[in-house]
Amino acid sequence: MARELTRQDLLDLARGAAFLGTGGGGDPYIGRLMVERALDEGGNVTLMSLDEVPDDWFVIPTAMMGAPTVMIEKIPRGDEAVASLRALEAHLGRKADATMPIECGGINSTMPLVVGARTGLPVVDADGMGRAFPELQMETFHVYGVPGTPMAITNEHGDTTLVTSHDNKMMEWLARGITIRMGGSSLIAEYSMDGATAKRTSVPGTISLGIQIGRCLREARAAHDDPFEALIEMLRGTLYGYARVVFEGKVVDVFRRTTEGFAKGSARIESTTGGGTLELRFQNEHLIALNDGVLRGIVPDLICVLEAETAEPITTEGIRYGQRVKVMVVSTPAIMRSPAALAVFGPRAFGLDYDFVPIEELAA
Amino acid sequence: MARELTRQDLLDLARGAAFLGTGGGGDPYIGRLMVERALDEGGNVTLMSLDEVPDDWFVIPTAMMGAPTVMIEKIPRGDEAVASLRALEAHLGRKADATMPIECGGINSTMPLVVGARTGLPVVDADGMGRAFPELQMETFHVYGVPGTPMAITNEHGDTTLVTSHDNKMMEWLARGITIRMGGSSLIAEYSMDGATAKRTSVPGTISLGIQIGRCLREARAAHDDPFEALIEMLRGTLYGYARVVFEGKVVDVFRRTTEGFAKGSARIESTTGGGTLELRFQNEHLIALNDGVLRGIVPDLICVLEAETAEPITTEGIRYGQRVKVMVVSTPAIMRSPAALAVFGPRAFGLDYDFVPIEELAA
Repeated sequence: MARELTRQDLLDLARGAAFLGTGGGGDPYIGRLMVERALDEGGNVTLMSLDEVPDDWFVIPTAMMGAPTVMIEKIPRGDEAVASLRALEAHLGRKADATMPIECGGINSTMPLVVGARTGLPVVDADGMGRAFPELQMETFHVYGVPGTPMAITNEHGDTTLVTSHDNKMMEWLARGITIRMGGSSLIAEYSMDGATAKRTSVPGTISLGIQIGRCLREARAAHDDPFEALIEMLRGTLYGYARVVFEGKVVDVFRRTTEGFAKGSARIESTTGGGTLELRFQNEHLIALNDGVLRGIVPDLICVLEAETAEPITTEGIRYGQRVKVMVVSTPAIMRSPAALAVFGPRAFGLDYDFVPIEELAA
Repeated sequence: MARELTRQDLLDLARGAAFLGTGGGGDPYIGRLMVERALDEGGNVTLMSLDEVPDDWFVIPTAMMGAPTVMIEKIPRGDEAVASLRALEAHLGRKADATMPIECGGINSTMPLVVGARTGLPVVDADGMGRAFPELQMETFHVYGVPGTPMAITNEHGDTTLVTSHDNKMMEWLARGITIRMGGSSLIAEYSMDGATAKRTSVPGTISLGIQIGRCLREARAAHDDPFEALIEMLRGTLYGYARVVFEGKVVDVFRRTTEGFAKGSARIESTTGGGTLELRFQNEHLIALNDGVLRGIVPDLICVLEAETAEPITTEGIRYGQRVKVMVVSTPAIMRSPAALAVFGPRAFGLDYDFVPIEELAA
């Protein structure tokens, strides 16, 4: 049901989106500040569930693009995503009825809320990744046949580019080059579609889920409950039904560089309970977790690094030596595990020589 | 006066444009083949002098963009520049009445002819560089206040991007990034303007000049005259009034790499008459000629490396060890030597720590 978001929702969402970002997607803290500013200026955000969206509505998703390492230093001005939406509307000669996220993890869970607050457009409670992924073709929209272009890309100086391509991978390639030239981050509007297509190709309810995760962690802490237990219990009732802590330890090594527009690298965590070493590899997001060579979690399942006491999500740009962490792996919805989906954002799409194994199987 | 171009004109233009390219601008041989093919398919090209263009006509210049080293290997399909023109027309909601070159040196003297032959649009006999330059803001259009964007960029797969920027240097920066991602060359439409603006900001008659240079070389060879003498004599009657052979020798060293979307490097020529060594530095085009440290020619004046017997122009990607060459320096028109023009494409715009000295002064 459509509802207006509260400030408490935003605080909860920032934390929940960081969790769903599996280390990437950009720090949602900045996105939250941007929404709050838009609310301060008199806007408000209406969240609309996917099944409420009329089939003939025109939906333009909006997002931030770039390396999370850049996003936390090159803060958007606030109106770039609106400029991208308007540029795309002008190019298509059609007004949007709603906006929505392309990814629900990280800063991009909040970017469409900024657009919603500034334009009055409702925000659809769904997204195209069900988490965060580093590339634009890694979306359920793409998996299920939606053209990503025409696409608009805007920077903080008002420079705008429109990309048209018959191939969503080429769109990613060109848009990445443009974003790099814009300084490493930009604001985009892409995958415009009608309401019927959005219903067919989206992961539903993922903004609500982010809020729910944030609230769960907040309430568990306030009640002095174990936040990990609370989270596992809460997720059981969602599309992300299975979650499990697969490792606990201390971060002993981090290798990270910002290259080709991405934050790429690896981290090593040493067990505090004699469980050996966990190696994580990431491209913006965590991709694989190997415990002394044994697979413990792999993309597209969510690999989340959380502070060991509070379960506070730690981003790949925030992970550092000495942190005490627990690593939780969460199952992803069926729409993200189809052969077509795995071809787009399964392990081999990232150059990993592994097949996808669901966390439920790994744990068994 | 408007006139239809002949096949002989095209042959002459290919040679003349290579001369005006001062080593860069891409090999016009490929451009000539593309025009001939369009003519074979039934098109024809009408060249229209600048003063014939009605003030209220809408002119969209078209061109190829990229490193000449790439252009000679990644041949255009033939309709990309038309696609760029059409994309820009659609974006602006206005049809072009004519196209024109942005540069008259190298392949870009012929690209608008391909567009003219395929669309039936007349081609304005003028350009925005009066030679070839490596970057898109290095145009008299930019010097005299024409916005370069909206700009369209198309590749051989039909991918199109539209760039809008308030700053022509930013346009160059973004378009270069896009062109690199398109494989190092692309076809573009930019600096759209009305006829009155074209008259105010263009270098006039430069396609005719290219044809005239080519014809002059052809006729001098046929008559067994000295082609260098003939060329110097011929140029005396044009806007490029002064020309001079400043060095003669053998190419003994070439350093060239394709980097950041450009062909950059240097060449050394050893005198065959005891005149020491000439050092040439280039970024797509030759920028400076130093004879044992003494300045003999500098951008924006034309520095042309010509085969020593036939005066055949040699491009920076074609220059190689052992070639016997003469280096000719040619004065550029006054519109290209104003302080505003020198700020945009004078020596310091290329990072050279020299002031511009006209060839007439250097020779005195």
